[in-house]
Parts: sequence; C-alpha cells; structure tokens
Amino acid sequence: MPIVTLTTDFGLAGHYAGVLKGVILDIAPRAVLVDITHEAPAYGIGEAAYLVAESWRWFPKRTVHLVVVDPGVGSARRPILLEADGHLFVAPDNGVLAQVYAGPKAAVKVKVRHITNANLFGAGASTTFHGRDIFAPVAAYLAKGGRPAQAGPLIEDYLRPHAGAPVRTGHRVWQGQVLCVDRFGNLITNFLESEFPAVRTRPFVLIPGITRVEKLVDHYAEAAPGEVVAIIGSSGYLEVSANQASAARILGAGVGAPVELTIY
Amino acid sequence: MPIVTLTTDFGLAGHYAGVLKGVILDIAPRAVLVDITHEAPAYGIGEAAYLVAESWRWFPKRTVHLVVVDPGVGSARRPILLEADGHLFVAPDNGVLAQVYAGPKAAVKVKVRHITNANLFGAGASTTFHGRDIFAPVAAYLAKGGRPAQAGPLIEDYLRPHAGAPVRTGHRVWQGQVLCVDRFGNLITNFLESEFPAVRTRPFVLIPGITRVEKLVDHYAEAAPGEVVAIIGSSGYLEVSANQASAARILGAGVGAPVELTIY
Amino acid sequence: MPIVTLTTDFGLAGHYAGVLKGVILDIAPRAVLVDITHEAPAYGIGEAAYLVAESWRWFPKRTVHLVVVDPGVGSARRPILLEADGHLFVAPDNGVLAQVYAGPKAAVKVKVRHITNANLFGAGASTTFHGRDIFAPVAAYLAKGGRPAQAGPLIEDYLRPHAGAPVRTGHRVWQGQVLCVDRFGNLITNFLESEFPAVRTRPFVLIPGITRVEKLVDHYAEAAPGEVVAIIGSSGYLEVSANQASAARILGAGVGAPVELTIY
Repeated sequence: MPIVTLTTDFGLAGHYAGVLKGVILDIAPRAVLVDITHEAPAYGIGEAAYLVAESWRWFPKRTVHLVVVDPGVGSARRPILLEADGHLFVAPDNGVLAQVYAGPKAAVKVKVRHITNANLFGAGASTTFHGRDIFAPVAAYLAKGGRPAQAGPLIEDYLRPHAGAPVRTGHRVWQGQVLCVDRFGNLITNFLESEFPAVRTRPFVLIPGITRVEKLVDHYAEAAPGEVVAIIGSSGYLEVSANQASAARILGAGVGAPVELTIY
Repeated sequence: MPIVTLTTDFGLAGHYAGVLKGVILDIAPRAVLVDITHEAPAYGIGEAAYLVAESWRWFPKRTVHLVVVDPGVGSARRPILLEADGHLFVAPDNGVLAQVYAGPKAAVKVKVRHITNANLFGAGASTTFHGRDIFAPVAAYLAKGGRPAQAGPLIEDYLRPHAGAPVRTGHRVWQGQVLCVDRFGNLITNFLESEFPAVRTRPFVLIPGITRVEKLVDHYAEAAPGEVVAIIGSSGYLEVSANQASAARILGAGVGAPVELTIY
Repeated sequence: MPIVTLTTDFGLAGHYAGVLKGVILDIAPRAVLVDITHEAPAYGIGEAAYLVAESWRWFPKRTVHLVVVDPGVGSARRPILLEADGHLFVAPDNGVLAQVYAGPKAAVKVKVRHITNANLFGAGASTTFHGRDIFAPVAAYLAKGGRPAQAGPLIEDYLRPHAGAPVRTGHRVWQGQVLCVDRFGNLITNFLESEFPAVRTRPFVLIPGITRVEKLVDHYAEAAPGEVVAIIGSSGYLEVSANQASAARILGAGVGAPVELTIY
C-alpha cells in the first residue's frame, strides 16, 4: 500500500487538510495517509523545509511526500515533482524542498520535473488552492503507481536557496543559527555533529544569543532540572536544551537566532 | 474500503477523538478514518456546519461523515442520519448538517432519518458522550455496508436553521457576513461568485466592518504584501484577504461580522 | 489489520509524530495508526496516564498502544512492554502506564517485560529519541504479530506510583482531586460513581476549590447556561461542568486541584 505523507501550513482547525485527503482517496483509494504536520507556520517555507528534511528518510522507498506551503499560489511559481533516493516529492518550487537537494543531509542525486500535465489535475483549478487542485491529484497519481515522467519535463533551474550552513568567522569560531525550536523548547542549531565532532572531545563554548553553554550532556536527565546544556540531538544537530524546561524560553531565543560556536 | 470522516469539537489534546476511532475500528476494522477537524470551536455548530459543507463533496460516494458538535447531548435533541448524493451523514439534529440540505451549496435531494435503533448503539449509553455511544457505532455500521433504513424512520421535521444568504438592502447593495476565518486570516464571506458574477467585470465596494475593499485579484501574490484585497476563494465565495498577512487581524473582523457589497 | 495507537507529548507542529509513523510503517506496512493524542503536556506523565487509561479498552484486543512521554529518555529508566486483557503497551517505565495496572480501572492481571532485545531496535539508537529508535520499532514488531516474550524478560519491580484514589478525611467526607480538564472545561474528578453511588440518591456537597456544588444533573443541557453542576461523566467519574461554558475557567481550577466531597 503506497504511503502519502502530508506537510502543510493549513492548520488543523479548518477543512483544508481534510479536503486534500478526500481528493487523494478519491483517486487512490488504497493510499495510506500520514500527517507530518499541518501546523507549519503560515507561509513558513523554511520551517517546513526543515520538517520535510528530518522526516522523509524514515519512510519506506516509493513514499510520496506532499508538501504544500505555498504563499505564491496562483502566481508564476511552478509546481514541481522531485525524485530522490526512491522517494517522490510534490510541492511548489519555492524552496520548501531545498534541504532534500542541498545542504548537509541532501540526497546525492535528484531529478526535478516541472509539473505541466493538466490531465492529472482536478477539474476547475482554482487560483488559491493548488494543494487541492494540482498537488494532491498529482500525489495520488504517483501513489497509484503513475510514472513521474508523465507529470512533466525535467528542469534544472529550480529554486536553490542558500543552504544555511555555519560560516567560519575566526580561527576556532563558527557562526551558525537556530534551525528549529521543537515543542520542548529545544533549540536545534545547524551545527551537525558529523561536521564538528570535536565538540565531543574538546572544550567548547556555544553562544545562542547572549548565554554561554559549555557543557555537553549525553541525555537530558544528565542535566539538573532547568539547567541549559548542549546535546547531540536525534537529528545529528547540536541542540541547546534544558532538562524538563524550555531552553527557548529561558534564553529568549527562537528560529533564526544566531549561535556562535568556539572550539578550543 | 469505506471512508469515515470525523468532524468534532473534541479538541486534539484529549482522548475523545481517539475513543471514537477505537469504537469505529472495533465494529468496522477496514474503515479508513479521515479527520476533517477536531478543533471546531467548542459548541460551534455554525462553524462545523461550514466545514462539513466545504469538505464532503471531495470524498467518494458511500463515504460516511460523522459530525459530533453536540452541546445538547443527553437532552431531547435527536440523532439523525442524512443521505445526500450518495453520501451518508451521522450527527445530532441541531443544525450542524444544515448546509448539506439548505443554502447555496445544498444537495438537491436528501433523506433524513431519526436514529432510533438501539441495537446499533454501544453498550451502556452515557448521557454525555453520544459520539462514542451512538454516533460512532451507527457510522461504523454504515461503513460496514449496513442499510440506512435499519437506523430508524424517515422524518421531515429536522431542524432547518436560517440559511444565512446575503440580503438585498438597496438597489445595488447587499448585506452579507463572514462565514469563516481560515488559518491565514482570510475572511470567507457568504457572497458566492456564481450568484454575484458582476464582481468580476464591474466596479464594486466590499465593506467588511469599516474598511472599503475595491480591488479584486486573481491570486494572493498579485497584491502587495499586507494589502487587503478581494479574491474569489477556492470554495467559490468572495474572500477578503491580505497577501502573506491576516486580513482578519488587519481589519479586526471575525466570524459573523457584517459585510456590505455594492456593485456599480 | 493490527492497530497501533499513539499517545505522546511531541506536539503536532513538529515532525516527531510523523517520524514515529514512518518507522512503524516501514516495519509493519499493514498497521493501522490511530492518534490518541500528541498534545499531552510536555513531560506530562500523569496526564498521559489518564488518557491511556480512558482510551485503551475501546480498541479491539491485540491493539498495540505506543505511549511516549519520556522526560528520562537516555537515562537508566527502562523501556517496558505490558500485556493486559489482550492489549499490548510499549512505553517507558515512568508511571505513564500506571493506570493500566493500578487504580480503580486497572486490568485484573498484567505481565510486564523489560525490553532488552536490541535486535528489535532501530539502527544507531540516539539518547534523546527512543520513541523513534526503540519504542516504535518494538510496537511495529508486535503489530506484525511478533511474540512479546522476544522483547525481554518479565519483571516485577516496574514503577508503581500512588494510584491517587480519594482519601477519607471525615465521617462523611472524602478528599479527592481533579484528574483532568477536558476541552470543554469539565473538571473530571477522581470520584468514581461506582464507588460513591450515594451521590445519585442523597444530598451531597462537592467543593472544587472554594465553590460549593450541590446539584447533580443527568445531562449538560439540564443546567442553565453557565450554571456549575455535577454530572456523572462518560468515564464514570464525577465531573464538575457548566452548560456551554468552562467550569475550569469559572472556578479557576485545574489538574490536581483538591476536591472535597461530603455525602449527607
């Protein structure tokens, strides 16, 4: 049974996410639908890109990932179909898939198509809800085993936003940022442990905002309740966390906040 | 595989929605469950009625729509089963299905039954959770292919609340209202483009609250960021929107707010 | 088709719940996934324990209940597998399953195992996301029909927190507490009607906080709008409710608030 994951900024209080599912099941009745989230911030392309990047590899190959965060709906921005490591992605070409094809966790090889085949679309496409009228029908077509090549031609000029890796600013100093704040108030930075393995063995200072963090713990409970520490998170990124408390609230830091790392 | 959609005001932080699903799957193990929302406002019959009206036609025929917004649970209000265009609805008779049988998008022909067959109910019905004890078991019975006529007798005196269409108040003036505010802050009015097609071709003024809106755009990005404009929304209703911003917040308007339309 | 329910404090805005589902479906493609909630309060072991206790029996036997509220992730706290009345539970040993094996609604007989078989775990277990790396893979193994005994040895010394039943404090007086506040603002107390049946037939005073409640209604609409009354809730507990209003807000009471019951 084919899986279709859904990542949108539609929210859960309205009918938009439900309508996507009705459209998909009408076309592909055996599809298994899995919500990644519908609570991406409204118009939050960067946040949704992070959530897609962190979730897609945990699904089996042939999964179709439907991503609709689409402030440019109805404008000239293109709908695209991306193939990467046996997974399929359907989304607007606005950078929301950028971390699948660029950055530290990108797939080695991707193919991107401009979705142009209107035969796959719903009847009477609106200019404000392409999730319903274009993206969901194409995702359902793929879930039924449809061939990606039928969706449209390969393109090379899809949007490639800045990948946002840390920048070296001194001999032992790098400037990074907060990628995401999770529900527990953990600040997930863009320092990958695989690229900064010395944090495990050498003294370091991590400065999110104006607070110095110098202690690396193995798991949350190793810190005192409320103590702010660094930890290698489950995604491989260095996180700033507090045991049973919100580091984001304690530090007053959020998505995009600068984080400086010095390794001695 | 039969689909059962769920629309409730149970919220997502508790166990009530999960219990509905357990009850359904216990009776109809092959049912495919799809959430429309569980975040309808508490006791929000009108809001839920809108969400049901906007979502049900996107599902295949034979879908069972379970709707539980039920402030009168345990009182004399009746449980009903509605058949419309090959879809089935199970809900309390409090107007939450009103837009399926009345108003501009209503089905042409409906049959309504008073659900009286206690053999279909769960054991030990409570007086406070008919979603679990009456509505979900009946929905599951229908999902398994059970015959609607088994649920109870046809009735004609189900609740028919005022449909809420715009009212003509002058030669070229109509008074309508805001039906719904979506997650993006779009104000969805009750002016259907199919009934007011002149907005596409003639000058007009739309006044939600105290702000005049005279510009119709084709898609959001056609407006400047933050600019408040009118747009034909994906549901066919005239919407008041702001590009990448919340028109509701900018205008201070919400559900039920008056909207005046003048067409010149 | 095997059912796996999910109860976590991961929230719905992130990718954690979606990743759990990807891991499960990768191992057990035919599993039917049902969310109880992902909005348990962060680190809210007691609240999650209540939600699990109130939902599990509504699912068919052989259901696997995956419960991940896990502030001690990565520490010495053990992962456990619980068997009760034909249901299976996978969770950390921190009390989140306590109401399945203790308290007024507990199963008669349970078996608890310490999950030690690392062959069932995901590759490269993290120290911060055992939901993904340990609990979900074990739940999927069970959903596929795997034998519980393969997970690890039986143990007896699992955590048995205080069950929290009301305490008799006078001749006709008991001291209890608020177990849960639901979305409607109903205060669900730990007074079970089956243990205090006299509330149905004799005068009583229920004092949540500083307000006296002396009226028992059969259903919400029997009270005047906003009137605070007692009611036998759908879970069998005595609840303090207000018709179409939030008793919690009116009384300023929340989870853990003391409730005194006097029966005359």
